[in-house]
Amino acid sequence: MHIRRAEAGDTAGIAAIIVPTIREGTTYALDAAMSEADALAYWMAPDKETFVAEEDGVILGTYFLRANQAGGGKHVCNCGYMTSRAATGRGIARLMCAHSLEHARSRGYRAMQFNFVVSTNERAVKLWQAMGFTIVGRLPLAFHHPTAGDVDALVMHQPL
Amino acid sequence: MHIRRAEAGDTAGIAAIIVPTIREGTTYALDAAMSEADALAYWMAPDKETFVAEEDGVILGTYFLRANQAGGGKHVCNCGYMTSRAATGRGIARLMCAHSLEHARSRGYRAMQFNFVVSTNERAVKLWQAMGFTIVGRLPLAFHHPTAGDVDALVMHQPL
Repeated sequence: MHIRRAEAGDTAGIAAIIVPTIREGTTYALDAAMSEADALAYWMAPDKETFVAEEDGVILGTYFLRANQAGGGKHVCNCGYMTSRAATGRGIARLMCAHSLEHARSRGYRAMQFNFVVSTNERAVKLWQAMGFTIVGRLPLAFHHPTAGDVDALVMHQPL
Repeated sequence: MHIRRAEAGDTAGIAAIIVPTIREGTTYALDAAMSEADALAYWMAPDKETFVAEEDGVILGTYFLRANQAGGGKHVCNCGYMTSRAATGRGIARLMCAHSLEHARSRGYRAMQFNFVVSTNERAVKLWQAMGFTIVGRLPLAFHHPTAGDVDALVMHQPL
């Protein structure tokens, strides 16, 4: 397994991960019906650095890193991570998060913030806490979960 | 004074308010050096509804309203408000906020969230609290203020 920058030829492998996650609609505040092209445009937007976690030529995970705000807020970065369903439980999200923290430090960012961690995504919340993030905000009923109904979203943060 | 939708002919009046505020760099996490065209493109983006507060044909304030997230987060809206320096202290921000809350309700939004209220902007924090918002998050040192240095930013919220 290694993590490297996404390249133009990775779009099919990235789409195979992000589109099903977006369709499920339980973890990201994105239109579940968005097209594959729109999903890729979002995940690989010009203001993002996009990476993939690859094993034997197969993409098992992907993440992006970007400045969370412009101007006076540009020293704080933001990331999004998604792992292949088939590879869940292998620690790929943890590896990608560690990679992103290191990359963010190398870029000179001074903090990382997740703006919208769906509170029912307990696996993610626990992992981010284990990786050093703390909950700095709770957005009441900010996410309409397809089966759980309206649930809180969390803002999570760590200094770098 | 009345509040109405911004029209194409309002760009000069809107720019006269938002560009100096952006240049000052003390209240919005936007590039202080951004061009007037970019500032207008941001403030009047297609995903925003933009309004102006007008008196005797002069624009004294402007605000936008948009969905804060897509998908499962689209029932929460977000606004930004700016008032002409010359008209500060006349309650224009308060009027615009009241208008935006009413408009958000009419649009079916179920909450309003401000993602990044600079904590040193005490006038705004107090006004939003008086208008019913509570602080649901505190982003540590998230804003580099040009004179105060790194200061917290607040996430503020109210159900509609």
